[in-house]
Amino acid sequence: MNSMSNPVPDRLLGDRRRVVVEHVRPSVDGGEFPAKATRGLPLRVSARAFADGHDPLLAWVWHWPGAKPLAPDAPPPGMAEVPMEAEPQDMFGAWIKPRRLGAWSFAVVGILDVWGGFARDLTIRFEAGVDVELDLADGAALAAARAELPAISKSDRRALTALAAKLGAPTPPEARVQLATREATMGLMRRTADLSHATIAGPYQLWVEREIAGYSAWYEMFPRSEGAVPPRSGTFKLARRRLPAIAAMGFSVLYLPPIHPIGVTHRKGPNNVTESSPGDPGSPWAIGSSAGGHTAVDPGLGTIDDFDEFVAAAQAIGLEVALDYALQCSPDHPWVAEHPEWFRHRSDGSIRYAENPPKQYQDIYPLDFDSGDAAGLWLALRDVMRFWIGHGVRIFRVDNPHTKAFPFWEWLIAEIRRESPDVVMLAEAFVRPAVMQRLAKIGFSQSYTYFTWRNTVWELSQYLTELSQTEVVDWFRPNFWVNTPDILHATLQQGGPPAFRLRAVLAAITCPSWGMYSGYELSESAAVREGSEEYLDSEKYQLRPRDWSSPASLAPFITRLNEIRNGHRDAIAQMSTLRLHHMTDDSMLCVSRSTPDKEDVIILVVNLDPHHPREASTWLDLGALGLAADRPFEVHDELGGETYTWHGAVNYVRLDPVWLPAHVLQVRQQR
Amino acid sequence: MNSMSNPVPDRLLGDRRRVVVEHVRPSVDGGEFPAKATRGLPLRVSARAFADGHDPLLAWVWHWPGAKPLAPDAPPPGMAEVPMEAEPQDMFGAWIKPRRLGAWSFAVVGILDVWGGFARDLTIRFEAGVDVELDLADGAALAAARAELPAISKSDRRALTALAAKLGAPTPPEARVQLATREATMGLMRRTADLSHATIAGPYQLWVEREIAGYSAWYEMFPRSEGAVPPRSGTFKLARRRLPAIAAMGFSVLYLPPIHPIGVTHRKGPNNVTESSPGDPGSPWAIGSSAGGHTAVDPGLGTIDDFDEFVAAAQAIGLEVALDYALQCSPDHPWVAEHPEWFRHRSDGSIRYAENPPKQYQDIYPLDFDSGDAAGLWLALRDVMRFWIGHGVRIFRVDNPHTKAFPFWEWLIAEIRRESPDVVMLAEAFVRPAVMQRLAKIGFSQSYTYFTWRNTVWELSQYLTELSQTEVVDWFRPNFWVNTPDILHATLQQGGPPAFRLRAVLAAITCPSWGMYSGYELSESAAVREGSEEYLDSEKYQLRPRDWSSPASLAPFITRLNEIRNGHRDAIAQMSTLRLHHMTDDSMLCVSRSTPDKEDVIILVVNLDPHHPREASTWLDLGALGLAADRPFEVHDELGGETYTWHGAVNYVRLDPVWLPAHVLQVRQQR
Repeated sequence: MNSMSNPVPDRLLGDRRRVVVEHVRPSVDGGEFPAKATRGLPLRVSARAFADGHDPLLAWVWHWPGAKPLAPDAPPPGMAEVPMEAEPQDMFGAWIKPRRLGAWSFAVVGILDVWGGFARDLTIRFEAGVDVELDLADGAALAAARAELPAISKSDRRALTALAAKLGAPTPPEARVQLATREATMGLMRRTADLSHATIAGPYQLWVEREIAGYSAWYEMFPRSEGAVPPRSGTFKLARRRLPAIAAMGFSVLYLPPIHPIGVTHRKGPNNVTESSPGDPGSPWAIGSSAGGHTAVDPGLGTIDDFDEFVAAAQAIGLEVALDYALQCSPDHPWVAEHPEWFRHRSDGSIRYAENPPKQYQDIYPLDFDSGDAAGLWLALRDVMRFWIGHGVRIFRVDNPHTKAFPFWEWLIAEIRRESPDVVMLAEAFVRPAVMQRLAKIGFSQSYTYFTWRNTVWELSQYLTELSQTEVVDWFRPNFWVNTPDILHATLQQGGPPAFRLRAVLAAITCPSWGMYSGYELSESAAVREGSEEYLDSEKYQLRPRDWSSPASLAPFITRLNEIRNGHRDAIAQMSTLRLHHMTDDSMLCVSRSTPDKEDVIILVVNLDPHHPREASTWLDLGALGLAADRPFEVHDELGGETYTWHGAVNYVRLDPVWLPAHVLQVRQQR
Repeated sequence: MNSMSNPVPDRLLGDRRRVVVEHVRPSVDGGEFPAKATRGLPLRVSARAFADGHDPLLAWVWHWPGAKPLAPDAPPPGMAEVPMEAEPQDMFGAWIKPRRLGAWSFAVVGILDVWGGFARDLTIRFEAGVDVELDLADGAALAAARAELPAISKSDRRALTALAAKLGAPTPPEARVQLATREATMGLMRRTADLSHATIAGPYQLWVEREIAGYSAWYEMFPRSEGAVPPRSGTFKLARRRLPAIAAMGFSVLYLPPIHPIGVTHRKGPNNVTESSPGDPGSPWAIGSSAGGHTAVDPGLGTIDDFDEFVAAAQAIGLEVALDYALQCSPDHPWVAEHPEWFRHRSDGSIRYAENPPKQYQDIYPLDFDSGDAAGLWLALRDVMRFWIGHGVRIFRVDNPHTKAFPFWEWLIAEIRRESPDVVMLAEAFVRPAVMQRLAKIGFSQSYTYFTWRNTVWELSQYLTELSQTEVVDWFRPNFWVNTPDILHATLQQGGPPAFRLRAVLAAITCPSWGMYSGYELSESAAVREGSEEYLDSEKYQLRPRDWSSPASLAPFITRLNEIRNGHRDAIAQMSTLRLHHMTDDSMLCVSRSTPDKEDVIILVVNLDPHHPREASTWLDLGALGLAADRPFEVHDELGGETYTWHGAVNYVRLDPVWLPAHVLQVRQQR
């Protein structure tokens, strides 16, 4: 019967790797792209691991800098080992903290915990009154065999030999059972586990970006409006005066819409009319004129030196300048004449302008990423980014990346990262979920989101759950913008300053990164027309100097929000620990943020109704907060200043939006 | 600026594959294992496909027999192409029907639908009153360029040239817009699309099994009980008399617990007592005695020739015999003496018997899959299966596969399938979800499930949704058993015949495969003790001759269930189209089953309360049923015989479990 035809393949027979390790995270599409990590921020690694039979498992994360594979003999330089904790449903998890920018690798290692199974069964039998003499002899044999393994330290070898002797000694079984199962013995056996039969899943790749990729507060401004006296434009020199106020509000990134020369052909007038008048400044996104293209500064704003000084002045007070990377041209862009092959032509020889039929945008020529000279175009576009990197810019907000070829972004991001791993890119793609996710998967550091259109408890709960509790957290870093020059949501148009405050609290506290377009602090709420999300007299088409000294300014409120964020930075930055909590009123939202160790826990309660006071009870998930059900705890409102004593899951909250739309409660006694 | 350092890699620049194709299904862990297909049963292929920009997409499934890769020049022999339909959220789907057992391959192909985008924009512009002369010229140019492609038929080339000429002709634009956008033109342009820029995801592998793997009704019996006069055992010869009645009930598989010689050492007595008396037959799972091991027939049952005749007699009336593949030995199994190295030894030299501490099973020796002679053991185990295949068995119920090494099953299934692609294996693993899923992923044809422990509307809804609406449907074929010799659920112990009927309806109608252990039709409901799921006087340990002629037998009811199944076979076999529908009573469950084309739709309504009549209204998901909201439709109760006129989503149902626990409603007018 024991025929030797079709012998059992060595691959299987030699395979004593009894443990299956699957669903390893963080990962992107099974490892097709690196998952995201942020320097210094704890990152959750998890996997499902199991084996045939009844033995428990041991699992570890191995992680190391760079993209080196695991060699069979020597561990990669800098490798660290972190034990994983067993969780329900065969899951295992651990936190790691990548320390260096760029490529990082990890693997999940699983083996049968033979000693753990032995100790568990020994205890059950002993407690059931079964004779365990033979079990103890088996344990002695296991320990003695372990002492023979090659890769064990001298002291562990001595300890194993001593353990074997004691377990086999003719002493009362009770003492030996205690010896076999005590923590010191368990630790010794874990430490000396035979990894030659281990299942190693991976390595999986991470891309580690700097802290600001994972935690940032953005402020968007048109520098031409600062100090403008229409029709005279503001300049970088004038706009520098505004920098201290922006920094004082606590923002870390200052994003400028395109600063390049603006086309004159088909220039748009105020409120996007197709005819402009002399003196109309035009849309900054119609890039390029006789004064230059994507590497030139609009003469109205000043010179490249003025720009450099602006960047340096911002940097000096803790503000990083982010530029807009908008890959399109006005008909007057130098490339139109120099490289007509980079644009798409129609059958009459004309260049195809941008359209969203039947709307036509004659002031914008899209680039053709499939151009016959695609190599020339792609290199030129890369060199645009390089140019601004050379001028101290390390953050780019990328305009409509979803209308450009995905392979271009994959290539560009890899190119730029090789030279400048500190570059951060924010994808401005308001498009279908699959496309937004793809852009994040192929490497964009941060992404605009649907936050602006998520206003009810249900909408926000669903969205925050998706962004924090699903695999999306492995590659998608959301940036919650409360407004943009394109988006003034109806909630803001109708809700007055209370709506502005509540939306700012939501963005700032629920999301690691948030953003605001200037004018928000003045509660600017006039739309160009009923039902539109466009601003009236949009700054996209005209100069908008503002009076920042208004006593109604929300600047102090916004300053406080960023202060609270910075006081709870590790909790706010950690998207994966965000949890929703039920409230008994359907206009009140309760969200907690916490560090992985629950040393810092904050509970946000927001009244989403800007028009009415609301009162309700929380229904806290105490386990997620690390709180005991039977003990009171103090919560301190970082926004309102009060301190309350709460008890258990159910606690009363009343919020009047006119006075304060939210509590941001620091949990003070949690054990 | 156009530096040529770091040139753009050809891989990317040459890559005009603008379409991303992801989340291709059916697939198992990204292609690690083949997904399951059933010969003749439509299989849903889906993927998410999208591109940058605004053009629509075209997508196809290519599928072909065997595991041949896609060559760049010639399609694999037998390749078929099926267009995919666009669905919301960038999803595309199609149904394919693999026709041959064994390996099968498919790929998903996506390209930009350039003409589709052109025709869409042309229509919008024309209807908006925009001058479309240049657009029509662009269309003519597109058609003319298409006519130059190499791989186009002569007639299509002529049609494209004619189309180009007509679109460019000086005729009224209205006629030309109509020509450009009519279905014949759209079909021509789809047919001649340039696939040289297509994105091809795959190939992905399928394993096609025969019909009975995807649709089966199992009956389990202990042949030794048939015609037994205790202590005299029944035999294969006597049990043959029972075959016509089983076939008449409509079952297609007859599963026999192990038929091998039973050990005498530590043989268990009635009700699992550790001491047996002479004449006690012992548990069939304690395999092996001096009379032989896994390839021998228990002398009490007869000879191998008697077995062959039993198999042939069953086959002749449409019953396939399934054997138990139970890889464990009694202490008296010949292998214990011949191959002691195949078992695990303790430090005193004894063989380790089975345990679930503190319980001990001295009558069972597990095999050691890591044995020093694993090659010898694995080959011997394969040859056991080969032996029974040689005796006409093609279906195996595998006992506790989760306690044996996964690599062994991977190897065994591949070995057996290479020789016998018609072999079907049912995994009996009642264990944690990850482990059950893994066994299905590595190749088990069918799996036992948690069905027995899913009794409430919530439990059944969750479970049926998981089994039909998640990726699990790609590899896991559930088999719903209403009872087994190990599992007599409390619902049956307490619910009387109404409970037996309702659980049978649930299993038979909601699941493509279902199973019943004999005695169920007699509503046997006595447990060995309160709180236990073990039968009193379990047939595992003693002979249980039964009086099949009881007037209370549920055999007619069960016969009718299998008749209904066979009358709606394509709907019942198709797990992926199962849908849950809301009912206004929390003890009533509503489930629909349908063919992909909705030509056959049945609606099951069950009263899960065996003690009380219940009445409620349906809340049908009419879209899932292919029904219009505004028209009445007839439903015919295949179980009760009545015909009702229903209208819209809300319809009244009353079910008295004493009379009939369920409606199985065939939808008769659905359009």
